[in-house]
Amino acid sequence: MAKLTWGMIGGGEGSQIGPAHRLGAGLDGLFDFAAGALDHRAAEGIDYGQRLGLGERAYGSWQEMLAGESAREDRVDLVTIATPNATHFEITKAFLEKGFNVLCEKPMTMTVEEGEEIVRIAERSGTICAVNYGYSGYSLVRHMRAMVARGDLGKVRLVNAEFAHGHHADAADADNPRVRWRYDPAQAGVSAQFADCGIHALHMASFVTGQEVTRLSADTVSCLEARVLEDDAMVSFRMDGGAVGRLWTSSVAIGRQHGLGIQVFGETGGLRWSQEHPNQLYHMPLGGRLQVIERGEANLSPEADRTSRVTIGHAEGMPLAFANIYKDLAEAISARKDGREMDPAANLYPRAADGLRSMAAVYAVAASGQQEGKWLDARPPMFR
Amino acid sequence: MAKLTWGMIGGGEGSQIGPAHRLGAGLDGLFDFAAGALDHRAAEGIDYGQRLGLGERAYGSWQEMLAGESAREDRVDLVTIATPNATHFEITKAFLEKGFNVLCEKPMTMTVEEGEEIVRIAERSGTICAVNYGYSGYSLVRHMRAMVARGDLGKVRLVNAEFAHGHHADAADADNPRVRWRYDPAQAGVSAQFADCGIHALHMASFVTGQEVTRLSADTVSCLEARVLEDDAMVSFRMDGGAVGRLWTSSVAIGRQHGLGIQVFGETGGLRWSQEHPNQLYHMPLGGRLQVIERGEANLSPEADRTSRVTIGHAEGMPLAFANIYKDLAEAISARKDGREMDPAANLYPRAADGLRSMAAVYAVAASGQQEGKWLDARPPMFR
Amino acid sequence: MAKLTWGMIGGGEGSQIGPAHRLGAGLDGLFDFAAGALDHRAAEGIDYGQRLGLGERAYGSWQEMLAGESAREDRVDLVTIATPNATHFEITKAFLEKGFNVLCEKPMTMTVEEGEEIVRIAERSGTICAVNYGYSGYSLVRHMRAMVARGDLGKVRLVNAEFAHGHHADAADADNPRVRWRYDPAQAGVSAQFADCGIHALHMASFVTGQEVTRLSADTVSCLEARVLEDDAMVSFRMDGGAVGRLWTSSVAIGRQHGLGIQVFGETGGLRWSQEHPNQLYHMPLGGRLQVIERGEANLSPEADRTSRVTIGHAEGMPLAFANIYKDLAEAISARKDGREMDPAANLYPRAADGLRSMAAVYAVAASGQQEGKWLDARPPMFR
Amino acid sequence: MAKLTWGMIGGGEGSQIGPAHRLGAGLDGLFDFAAGALDHRAAEGIDYGQRLGLGERAYGSWQEMLAGESAREDRVDLVTIATPNATHFEITKAFLEKGFNVLCEKPMTMTVEEGEEIVRIAERSGTICAVNYGYSGYSLVRHMRAMVARGDLGKVRLVNAEFAHGHHADAADADNPRVRWRYDPAQAGVSAQFADCGIHALHMASFVTGQEVTRLSADTVSCLEARVLEDDAMVSFRMDGGAVGRLWTSSVAIGRQHGLGIQVFGETGGLRWSQEHPNQLYHMPLGGRLQVIERGEANLSPEADRTSRVTIGHAEGMPLAFANIYKDLAEAISARKDGREMDPAANLYPRAADGLRSMAAVYAVAASGQQEGKWLDARPPMFR
Repeated sequence: MAKLTWGMIGGGEGSQIGPAHRLGAGLDGLFDFAAGALDHRAAEGIDYGQRLGLGERAYGSWQEMLAGESAREDRVDLVTIATPNATHFEITKAFLEKGFNVLCEKPMTMTVEEGEEIVRIAERSGTICAVNYGYSGYSLVRHMRAMVARGDLGKVRLVNAEFAHGHHADAADADNPRVRWRYDPAQAGVSAQFADCGIHALHMASFVTGQEVTRLSADTVSCLEARVLEDDAMVSFRMDGGAVGRLWTSSVAIGRQHGLGIQVFGETGGLRWSQEHPNQLYHMPLGGRLQVIERGEANLSPEADRTSRVTIGHAEGMPLAFANIYKDLAEAISARKDGREMDPAANLYPRAADGLRSMAAVYAVAASGQQEGKWLDARPPMFR
Repeated sequence: MAKLTWGMIGGGEGSQIGPAHRLGAGLDGLFDFAAGALDHRAAEGIDYGQRLGLGERAYGSWQEMLAGESAREDRVDLVTIATPNATHFEITKAFLEKGFNVLCEKPMTMTVEEGEEIVRIAERSGTICAVNYGYSGYSLVRHMRAMVARGDLGKVRLVNAEFAHGHHADAADADNPRVRWRYDPAQAGVSAQFADCGIHALHMASFVTGQEVTRLSADTVSCLEARVLEDDAMVSFRMDGGAVGRLWTSSVAIGRQHGLGIQVFGETGGLRWSQEHPNQLYHMPLGGRLQVIERGEANLSPEADRTSRVTIGHAEGMPLAFANIYKDLAEAISARKDGREMDPAANLYPRAADGLRSMAAVYAVAASGQQEGKWLDARPPMFR
Repeated sequence: MAKLTWGMIGGGEGSQIGPAHRLGAGLDGLFDFAAGALDHRAAEGIDYGQRLGLGERAYGSWQEMLAGESAREDRVDLVTIATPNATHFEITKAFLEKGFNVLCEKPMTMTVEEGEEIVRIAERSGTICAVNYGYSGYSLVRHMRAMVARGDLGKVRLVNAEFAHGHHADAADADNPRVRWRYDPAQAGVSAQFADCGIHALHMASFVTGQEVTRLSADTVSCLEARVLEDDAMVSFRMDGGAVGRLWTSSVAIGRQHGLGIQVFGETGGLRWSQEHPNQLYHMPLGGRLQVIERGEANLSPEADRTSRVTIGHAEGMPLAFANIYKDLAEAISARKDGREMDPAANLYPRAADGLRSMAAVYAVAASGQQEGKWLDARPPMFR
Repeated sequence: MAKLTWGMIGGGEGSQIGPAHRLGAGLDGLFDFAAGALDHRAAEGIDYGQRLGLGERAYGSWQEMLAGESAREDRVDLVTIATPNATHFEITKAFLEKGFNVLCEKPMTMTVEEGEEIVRIAERSGTICAVNYGYSGYSLVRHMRAMVARGDLGKVRLVNAEFAHGHHADAADADNPRVRWRYDPAQAGVSAQFADCGIHALHMASFVTGQEVTRLSADTVSCLEARVLEDDAMVSFRMDGGAVGRLWTSSVAIGRQHGLGIQVFGETGGLRWSQEHPNQLYHMPLGGRLQVIERGEANLSPEADRTSRVTIGHAEGMPLAFANIYKDLAEAISARKDGREMDPAANLYPRAADGLRSMAAVYAVAASGQQEGKWLDARPPMFR
């Protein structure tokens, strides 16, 4: 596979997300970091980019980068967008329209309408538009999906997903600007905890079952009085393959450090996985015993094998899951360049339709929460 | 403390519940097993009772036992009712009216109206009417309650309770009469999984927080098609002290062997406990680290100390939790006999009002489930 | 099975061991508590015994009890000896010689010679002489033994046993008489931590594998300077069926609350069990996955089934394990009385030969520890 | 920090170790991969190196690389040696003598004498000679060391280390060349399982306590008959700060996937850590409760902070631990270049003296195992 090139918007000096993406993209040596508009302050962005070795491809703004890269023969194969949420739509749209492949941080957009527009543009332009639901990159999450797909659980009846932590539980810290904006509609939109964390859990429910959410009912609450947006939500939902879903998300659940986990129950078995200990997957076949599937086992699915790097018994963590999204994208981009079918086991990166569905779910959760849990259609209009 | 006497209705030869109660009542040597109407078949009941050493106090029916014991100077101090659910109300009522102290298996009644009647009779008669929510007997569950009551968590914001197992997940077993009756409205009433298991979790939420459920919204589903009543339910609720609640109960969650657990989150800390490993309680103070509280630790609460029997590091299990309910009752009965105040740390046995509240919650869950999760008052009319 | 009677030497008011035995013996209703010499102070013992309902069979000393019971037609079926360690030999011997069945607390004797004498007397008298290695009563420990015996692991290669806790780690508490005597040769004999805890782990190694220890090498140390006897020991050993053994015992391992556990590795599988969570047994078949065997599962071995009381998913703890030793003894005594073969699945109570072997191991550990880990014969002379 | 350059001997196409080092060295962007002699087959090595972007610095042999790099102004800042074990000494020695900094895979040498020579050369040449005990790179292992160093446990009394897995337990696989060579003295030297895995555990015991091993006694066995070298060993040891040690290593412990773990017990507390779940560290202060220290917590030690990359609640795994060794080396090399003191929190990479001590321990274990566990000096002669 020929080495690809990659650029980034956002992720400037001192950010967390910048190094995470550079690590993820670089981990397997599939992408060279070649361009960037790393800071909304032009001089700082160019300076930092040059220090990272980008040379003339360190740009002062995303607009300059769009112009500059569009003009090059060797334009970057992929652009990662890791800017503030409210700018994702505009930048993603602009790059897609110029034919760039994009990996956008979540949320892809701030509204459903914008999400639909992105989906349409991506389709029209024939480019890849991926959204960074990084937890779907874990090897054993891939294996869960493969097990369900090949029928190991029979028909899925029930899925229970959680993303409940306690990192915003401190009332004394609620006015800290770093926390407060998240619960302020003017800055965060219609939802806080569900939009920030809940959609990861909901995406995982879809990813693992291969089913999409159709309807939902939500109970959203603010456990800290000063907050307008919810810091805790319980969502019941239904999926298009018949599965029933339950999802709990919280930021006031003191004692849970991260709290993303999923349980899937089918006719002939159950699965359980937790992000805090991602190298084990618990499987109980109907009438059997609980078994521990280890990442790196021999004879797991192709989807698991290609996303596992170190031998069984050693831990892999979040950075490697993240890298798997880039690994998928490298395969997708390379296959297109080479005019071949991509490896189906890699064709699992979350895409614009997922970003759109999440946004539709966010609005449905917010609306249901305001209407005493009324069941609402959770699908974006274009998918109804 | 003078030794007390005790009798039982139901729990005949071959039953599971009979030995469990005899073990629980006898464990601390506080009660002598003195009378019983152990079987609805008179001859079998008398024969079995005599073999268990009851002599002439082995009765052929509960009516005979009521008459016989009422006529004795040394009538039993406590009557346990462990007959089929539909008979609990009638028998409990009859014994209470004759002034007996009663421990009734759950559900205490089949309707809310019956439940209110029991509460009124128990009040009027001045006797003890306890209901067997045995999981509240665990030493560390007592300690959770004590921690909340003394303010270790600050104001409780959120409680998350579960009782989800997979023992009725097998479609091939659904027609087994041992399973089927549970999901048949003609035999089980308005609710299956919530009425059977969910109310244990809901009772625990109340027990631990010291708050009562006021309103609830439920999503009830039958994952196995043939079933009329629910085998899975998600319930959101509110409590009278301001806590928000979430409760999940299931009988199709393959891979979970029992699945009762509770998490409580307050302003200044969180707690987590699971029935399958009942000798550890996980506590995280706000801003601190997760800590393991061990049953049998020095300097726990009086409520925990009096319900712990073996030294730290050894496990205590369900039979000892069960025995703690009897231990509470022995203290309550003895205190009455002796004309003294009972030990407040023992005054924790579940009582008729709890049985009534559970029944009101069962009906609210069933009704909400039929009305797309409409929020309903979960309180019995007499407590509104 | 006709109800049996049972008496106790020691276990007076305020002791821990007295209630534990009464609970264990009474739990299944197989034994009536009928006689006792509960205190070395005659008046106190008689008074307490009478309060426990023993009437005239509350004796002032073990000698009186021996005389009294020997003279009765309805002499007790079993005598439990729970007096200070140094008196076990004399009392056990006296009761065996008069034909009583005995359950002796560990250690059975203070020397190997005494142990051999007990074994000979028990053989000659034809009575049962059991020793209370109570941890062997757990249902899943029984199942481990059954799995090994029926070949589920193939030939056992290796066993790793631990009993390491931290309850004597506090230097400030080392002079507390409650602690100090344990490390004082004048009171405790040749070994402290190994004799107190290590032999439980060593017995379990034999119990589970069905093999006896032949040779051993020990490294014994006193981590607290003031101590003469060891508070930590590592023992390597060999067994008569070819297994290699490793055993670690400690009382200074801060952070471990009890610390008894065992791992067994054979040609075709491995097993792992821990006393702190005794309701799960971890099994990995060669080339397979780690599986969780749950106490109370359907279709376990007869040995496990008869020692399991509550349904799967509920915990059973130490008191029920202890009760299983009494359950074995009830079956053994009843079978003798009835002139029938006893249930082989019950024929697992630890016996005088086990008590003797432990004592030989204690002396071998102490001697090896003093000779820089020299390998020594760990068998009692009569079994060489 | 100016970017450094780095080269590699070994790690050719298809190897596991090559990508692992490239990932570790590249993860933080501190080193550019600039040179390599990747294969003992010259053409393959050059070709692969060129495909990895090394250009003219893709060499056909280590000798060529030594000559080529020595001749350059911009010679690589660090050389990693990941060739077959028997060649480590020769290559390490050659590069050190020419003034290169070296990171050598373990074992650093095959004999103690060679180890002493490397230590002397490294001292004389003033270069860095590191040895890859990668498990010491975990953030929480660093924190354990810091806690011990700052006195959180008081004086360390006892350390218990394990590295016991079951990956060579299959008798049917014992003749597989991939397995067999490990137990063959002609190829593996004097020790198999201890030399391969045990030394990681022993190094960790030293790393965490800050003490060195002085004497040891070993029980080495071959559980599979065909094997000459040991597949299981129990080692007792003493350390120069007074700590007592126990170490168990095995390759026949079926059911354990990796099995490296350590427990440290001091006067005022205990610590427990396991490589399979490396993001949690269990700490019990004397008289307190077991607490969970999470990687990424605020206010851990500087040693932990600089080796932690992702936020609390997410997992970091082996590749990031490995990268921390490179991160240490980057700091050490940069500090030398810049003529400044290096960050003491980074000065923790394992070095030649550690590789030498391991080799002395390997020989002592093998010799003690052959002499019935005789206690032997475990120090290399030059450190006695």
